[in-house]
Amino acid sequence: MRGYGDTCPIAAQASGQGALILIRTSGQGAVDLLAGIFSRPRALRAAPGNTVVHGWIAGPGGVPLDEVLVSVYRPPRSYTGEEGADISCHGGAAAAKAVLDTLRKAGFQDALPGEFSFRAFMNGKIDLTRCESVMELVSAKTRGALERAARRLSGALEREIRRIRDKLLEAVIAAEHRLDYSEDEFDSLSADSLEEEAGCLPRRDIAEDALRGLRNLSASYRRERLYQEGALAVIAGRPNAGKSSLFNALLNEDRSIVTETPGTTRDWIEASISLEGIPLRLADTAGLRDPAADPVDPGNPVGPAEALGIERSRELIGEADLILYVVDGSRGMNGEDEEFLAAGRRILLVWNKADINGAPEDSRKHFPGLAEVSAKTGKGMEELCRSLGALLAGPDQTGAFAGLGGTSSAGLGTSRQKDLIDRALAALEEALGLADRNEPLDLIAPLLRDALNALGEITGEISSADILDAMFSRFCLGK
Amino acid sequence: MRGYGDTCPIAAQASGQGALILIRTSGQGAVDLLAGIFSRPRALRAAPGNTVVHGWIAGPGGVPLDEVLVSVYRPPRSYTGEEGADISCHGGAAAAKAVLDTLRKAGFQDALPGEFSFRAFMNGKIDLTRCESVMELVSAKTRGALERAARRLSGALEREIRRIRDKLLEAVIAAEHRLDYSEDEFDSLSADSLEEEAGCLPRRDIAEDALRGLRNLSASYRRERLYQEGALAVIAGRPNAGKSSLFNALLNEDRSIVTETPGTTRDWIEASISLEGIPLRLADTAGLRDPAADPVDPGNPVGPAEALGIERSRELIGEADLILYVVDGSRGMNGEDEEFLAAGRRILLVWNKADINGAPEDSRKHFPGLAEVSAKTGKGMEELCRSLGALLAGPDQTGAFAGLGGTSSAGLGTSRQKDLIDRALAALEEALGLADRNEPLDLIAPLLRDALNALGEITGEISSADILDAMFSRFCLGK
Repeated sequence: MRGYGDTCPIAAQASGQGALILIRTSGQGAVDLLAGIFSRPRALRAAPGNTVVHGWIAGPGGVPLDEVLVSVYRPPRSYTGEEGADISCHGGAAAAKAVLDTLRKAGFQDALPGEFSFRAFMNGKIDLTRCESVMELVSAKTRGALERAARRLSGALEREIRRIRDKLLEAVIAAEHRLDYSEDEFDSLSADSLEEEAGCLPRRDIAEDALRGLRNLSASYRRERLYQEGALAVIAGRPNAGKSSLFNALLNEDRSIVTETPGTTRDWIEASISLEGIPLRLADTAGLRDPAADPVDPGNPVGPAEALGIERSRELIGEADLILYVVDGSRGMNGEDEEFLAAGRRILLVWNKADINGAPEDSRKHFPGLAEVSAKTGKGMEELCRSLGALLAGPDQTGAFAGLGGTSSAGLGTSRQKDLIDRALAALEEALGLADRNEPLDLIAPLLRDALNALGEITGEISSADILDAMFSRFCLGK
Repeated sequence: MRGYGDTCPIAAQASGQGALILIRTSGQGAVDLLAGIFSRPRALRAAPGNTVVHGWIAGPGGVPLDEVLVSVYRPPRSYTGEEGADISCHGGAAAAKAVLDTLRKAGFQDALPGEFSFRAFMNGKIDLTRCESVMELVSAKTRGALERAARRLSGALEREIRRIRDKLLEAVIAAEHRLDYSEDEFDSLSADSLEEEAGCLPRRDIAEDALRGLRNLSASYRRERLYQEGALAVIAGRPNAGKSSLFNALLNEDRSIVTETPGTTRDWIEASISLEGIPLRLADTAGLRDPAADPVDPGNPVGPAEALGIERSRELIGEADLILYVVDGSRGMNGEDEEFLAAGRRILLVWNKADINGAPEDSRKHFPGLAEVSAKTGKGMEELCRSLGALLAGPDQTGAFAGLGGTSSAGLGTSRQKDLIDRALAALEEALGLADRNEPLDLIAPLLRDALNALGEITGEISSADILDAMFSRFCLGK
């Protein structure tokens, strides 16, 4: 099998089937090969970069197969940096297959997954973080995830990593320079003064600047993952507080329901909605009752099946990014409610059945984020959705929820990036720790160099064929 | 709701989801509107037709949504004949949705089904037969169907219809001219001579030429439909002749199995394969035995269920485009086989179990198309497939099968075209019949005019808003 890393002409169907289908080609001599099966070969061969040529793809014997528009790209002005052409086919699946078969016969190779992006990377058009964002864009489920991936594609993350890398490089150069200087010039100095001098990390201010940058990036990952994979909001509360009604009301309120898990075997119902661009998994749990002593209904002891359900609900609540705790407004709060609210964090208190009984003044004071709603009449639902969205998307103001932070800074998009940032962070933290303890600079400098190399791996300045193969083979065809 | 027929800027997702997604726009001011949400507005506004501009689509507040390639079209050099732009999106479903939302906010209307083709028709870029072939291309299942639709798209049918129309027009003009001439100048002539003169259709030779053209087109429809919908080949023969083995062997032989009907409730099994570009429905029938007197197995009378199965098999055979009649070579032919073969047409005789016993010389002489195979060992299967393909695709040489005719001539692609051609044909046949009986020319000329109008409707030279709406609303979005 052909591997990544050559420059031969490749082709792949890049779009799904529809009114039109897009076939992508790239590689040395691609336009000339294409001209051989094109109704206007001379026009195609003469076409400058970034122009569109109209014509027909012809099969054996010149049989016209499909009327197409060919966008011609000339190096280096193309996605891959190579010569290439995008073919917009008029026809459907049979037409795309016929055109692809004809391209194969003409000498095009089937593109490997991610091969176009691989070539773009190899030709220095985009770094690895931007390659990865290309796939993030394809799999983005919500507008928020899309905008964040688009920001990475536009180079925001790459720039931030290069900024930190430049700082680290400066620190490494300063440290290594002093090491060299010490060895060459200060052989005659006393061991004491040399040690003191070495232990005092030169340009420590820059290293600490880099540290802050790395910590911000590392912390950004959870937020970015929430946009990609969604946050989990669990609806909890005592039995009959109106949890299921609130669940249904939230689904109705939000127009952009994504999926509703059908026939789930779990003890809770789950649905996905999009709030302020964040995919939100909304889970309705079984009623929470203390299996040992239930103050709500002492005459109705908790059976083993319900106990198991309650245990699973507690697990789910443990995983939740946000808890909507529902209180039955017609009955008011009891000790159990107060206990839950006092113990937990990331909780939004929902005062349900507010059409029967509004929240008392002291509850409102005690829980400033309290939302008064009636799931039955729809009262306050719109406000609740807005608060929820703001809570998820906005910065952490109340301390009640970790929040997703601002949207302006660069963030990490993949676990590969996170692992490497954490490797750089660990090395840098160790280096600064050693410096704090006045350890010799020749122990510290290699750690700074390690941190630098980890950053180089993220952007791909330092890379191995194995790592690249593993990374790009997870891409989809035509990317 | 907006209807067909305006020139406002429209947009639609034209391709399915994949590595890339294509969004199509068209309409007056489309490029300018697009520039308002594009990262390089001046470059886009200044772009000449048929050029590609690279940039970003930006949402509210200039937030980058997707990196795109925009192909700009300037009138009249575009599919619709209008100004427009195709947007090749980098991202997936969320990106396409975000870009479409942004286009809507910028002032683009959602395109109606087929609206791009409707505008192309209204602007005289393509006639109705070519519009229809655009949809045929999308739904083509096999290479053969694709090539035929592509030929119509390239204008082969339109040209043939216009050729016939020109002939008819000449005949109409000659007839109407003589009518005028008779009224104006020959009032004084005797009724007898006038009648004789009028009954003698002027330029009858051209009208007959048109008649031949119309008959060819009308006959072409069955063949074209076979390419679009497939031919039905039924495997028949006495019980235990090896019908099911042949059925399975044919499916194995042909690599391009399309579908296999699962769990069918019918009394036969059906699968679709592609032979020489023709979708072939292959059906395996129940064994054929005469319910009244079965010479094969007199001790095993035919029960009511089997009788029903046999009856359904006979119905299926009646519908078949081609019958593969299987004879058990190890037992040879009997009277029942000979009776079936003598009565039927469109039959290919398959001498099965040829590994045990080859066909005798006289059978080979009697049935020149006879295929000797062993479904068990695979012997002769490849040759059988080739004969079958040739029989379906090639012209009718043997008289054993109507065949699908040559592939060089123009053919009808839709039932609309067929109905109108038949209307023209009926009018012209009636006109020529009247002429044969020396009926007056003022009865004949309007019939010629009717035939002419029917042809005008096919290409759309004569059309009504209702007919166009009904036709284009069946198109898919983005076409």
